[in-house]
Amino acid sequence: MKKYQPVHILIRSAGNAADIRYLCGTEPPETAVLIQTGLRGTLIVSEMEYNRLRRTVKRGITVLHPALIGSSWKNGAADWIKKCTDEKKLTVGADFPLGLAEKLRLAGFKSKISEEAVCPQREIKTADEISAVKNTQHAAVAAMNAAIKQIASAQIGKDGLLRCGKTVLTSEMVRATICHTLLDHDCVAAETIVACGPHSADPHERGTGPLRAGQPIVLDIFPRSGITGYWGDLTRTVCRGPAPAELKKMYNAVKAAQAAALKEVKAGAWADDVHAAAAGELDRRGFKTGAVSGVPQGFIHGTGHGVGLEIHEAPRVSSANRQKLRAGMIITIEPGLYYPQLGGIRIEDTIAVTKDGYEILAPCPKKLEI
Amino acid sequence: MKKYQPVHILIRSAGNAADIRYLCGTEPPETAVLIQTGLRGTLIVSEMEYNRLRRTVKRGITVLHPALIGSSWKNGAADWIKKCTDEKKLTVGADFPLGLAEKLRLAGFKSKISEEAVCPQREIKTADEISAVKNTQHAAVAAMNAAIKQIASAQIGKDGLLRCGKTVLTSEMVRATICHTLLDHDCVAAETIVACGPHSADPHERGTGPLRAGQPIVLDIFPRSGITGYWGDLTRTVCRGPAPAELKKMYNAVKAAQAAALKEVKAGAWADDVHAAAAGELDRRGFKTGAVSGVPQGFIHGTGHGVGLEIHEAPRVSSANRQKLRAGMIITIEPGLYYPQLGGIRIEDTIAVTKDGYEILAPCPKKLEI
Repeated sequence: MKKYQPVHILIRSAGNAADIRYLCGTEPPETAVLIQTGLRGTLIVSEMEYNRLRRTVKRGITVLHPALIGSSWKNGAADWIKKCTDEKKLTVGADFPLGLAEKLRLAGFKSKISEEAVCPQREIKTADEISAVKNTQHAAVAAMNAAIKQIASAQIGKDGLLRCGKTVLTSEMVRATICHTLLDHDCVAAETIVACGPHSADPHERGTGPLRAGQPIVLDIFPRSGITGYWGDLTRTVCRGPAPAELKKMYNAVKAAQAAALKEVKAGAWADDVHAAAAGELDRRGFKTGAVSGVPQGFIHGTGHGVGLEIHEAPRVSSANRQKLRAGMIITIEPGLYYPQLGGIRIEDTIAVTKDGYEILAPCPKKLEI
Repeated sequence: MKKYQPVHILIRSAGNAADIRYLCGTEPPETAVLIQTGLRGTLIVSEMEYNRLRRTVKRGITVLHPALIGSSWKNGAADWIKKCTDEKKLTVGADFPLGLAEKLRLAGFKSKISEEAVCPQREIKTADEISAVKNTQHAAVAAMNAAIKQIASAQIGKDGLLRCGKTVLTSEMVRATICHTLLDHDCVAAETIVACGPHSADPHERGTGPLRAGQPIVLDIFPRSGITGYWGDLTRTVCRGPAPAELKKMYNAVKAAQAAALKEVKAGAWADDVHAAAAGELDRRGFKTGAVSGVPQGFIHGTGHGVGLEIHEAPRVSSANRQKLRAGMIITIEPGLYYPQLGGIRIEDTIAVTKDGYEILAPCPKKLEI
C-alpha cells in the first residue's frame, strides 16, 4: 500500500524565494518550482540553470529541467508538476499564483491553501544562521560608524548646512559612504535611509539633498550578505551640533522605549507585550500617536520584525501579533516617533532572543548630538 | 445609469512591483494594493507609508491607508478592497495570490484572470525611459572598463594565476571593482558575474576564487539605478593572455551570432526570427546545442529579453516567442555558448529597437584577448 505523503508546491515569487533558498540551500533562479514531498524535494528549473543548481542544492533535493521529465519549457509549470507527481492533492501557500492554481485544477489537481507558513522553522534560527546575521550586522555597524564619522567631521556653515571643505554634505554622499563600506564587507544595500529634518518624519523616506545642523538625521542601514543571503538591520538618529530641547526629549523617549521593550524580551514573552512596553513608555512621556488631518503621527509602526533570509519576516513585534517569543528568534527592536513639525527619531538594534533575555548581535553606540 | 468600468486589482509582489511603480510613478512599499478603475487608481498602504507616497505618486492616483476607509491593517486586503469599490467583478493578473482570491470570493467578488499583461504599454519605452536605461547602461560600461583594466593589468604567474603584485586576483576582487564603480554612478548590482574557466560554463554562476590566464572570464553586469529604478545589462568575455584556438573559434562564433541577430532587428521583425538568426550562425559554425549525459550544452538560453523597470521583462527574444518587435522596445541581444570542457562565452548588449534597425544604448568594445 502506498503511504500518503502531503505534496507541497512552491513557486518562486517574492513571497517564497526565501523559503526555496532555505529548503534547497541555494539561491533559486527567477523561475523555479519546488515539489516537496515529506523531507524530499524536486526542484524544476530551466536548462540553463540546471547544472549550477545540481551542484549547489542540499541533500534530499533533486534538480530537474523540463526535458528530463518529458516536458518542455513552453508547457509551463502545471505540466511539469503533472509529470512529477502521481498525488492529485496538493497544498500551496496563500501567495500561490491564481493562474497556475486554475491550470492545475483543469489538470485534475486539488489545491488546498495552507494557513501555516511554508517553513515555520525559519522563525527559530540555527547557530549558523545567528552567526550569518551577526556578520551582516557587523557590516552595518561598520557602515554606521563611517557615516557618523563623516557627519561629525563636517563643518557647520553660517547657513546651517553641513560642509566638507567647500562641498555641501548631502544625504547622497553619506549613503555612498555607507554603501562602499558595506561592499567592503561583501554586503549590498539597495535601499539605505539618510533622512534629515522633514524627510526624517517619514519612516521610509530615503532622503535627498543637503544635510543641516540642529536637525535629526535618521540613518537606517539594512544590508544583505552577498555570500550567505542573510540580512541585518540597524538604525541610529544623530544631530550635528546642539539639538533643540524638544528633539532631545524625543530622542530620550525613544531610547527609553527601546530599553523598555528590550526589558520584556525573553523566551516565553509575548510579542505584543514587547510592543506595548515601547508604546506605553512613549505615551507616558507625552508623545502621542494618532492622525492629525488624516496624517498619522507619533509611533506609527510596529516595534520590530524578524530578520533572516528576508529583511522583514516572522515574527512581527506589534500590537497585532499575540505570539510567544522563543529562544533563537532574531528580531529588531526599533521604536520611533514621527511628527511633521519636529522630524523623526528611530533607534534600532537587531537581537537574538535567549532563554533569559536577548543578545544584541552587533553593539553600536547611541548618541544624538555629534 | 452608472457606467461600468473594469476594476483591476494589483497586489504588490515580485511579479508586479514594477507594474505598480509604473502606474503610480513611485516605489511601492512591501505591502500595497492598487485598485485601478479606468485611468484612476487607489493605492492602499500602511499608515507609516501614507505620507511619503501621498507626496510622490502620479496624478490620478489616490493614496489611502486602512483607517481612512473605515478598515484596519489587521482586516487585510480583502476588506480594504470591499471598502473601496462597489463593483463586484474584478480582473486580476495570473500571479494574483490564491489566498486573497479565495477571501474575495467569500466576500462576494468575482475575480477574472486576465491573460494580458497588466501594463502591456511597458513594452514600448518612452523617450524618458530610454534615457533612463541608457544612463544605467553607461554605468555598466564604466564598471566593465574598470574590471577589464584590472584583469588586463594583472601579471600572469608561472602557475597560470593572475596576480596584482603578490596578491592573487580573484572573482571577488573584480566584482568589488565593478560594484564600487556602479555605486559611483548611483547604481546597485546585487548579483554580478565574474566567472572564470569551468565556472563560465554555467550561464548564471557568479564565480569565486582565483582568476587564471588562458581561460574565458565571463563578466555580466546588470545594475539598477537607485534613482530611476531602471536596469541595464551588459556582458563581455575576456581572456588574459593568449587564448586557446578552440576558445577563439567559440568567441568569434558568438560574436558573429550576435551580429547576425542584430542584423534582423528592426520594427516589424519577429522575436523568434532574431533568435533563429543567432542559433543558426552558431550551428553553421559547428557549435552544437543539446544535452550530453543530461547536461544541456551549447546555446542553452534565449537570445535576449526586455529591460526596463525589471531586469527580465517582455518581450522575450527566444524560439518560444512569435511576437513582432516594435520601435521603442528595449531588449538585450546576448548569444552564448557553454561547454563543460571549454567553458563559456557570452556577449551581450542592450539596444533600443528603431524603425529601421536598432540603437546600442551604450557602446562597449569587444575583445577576447587582453
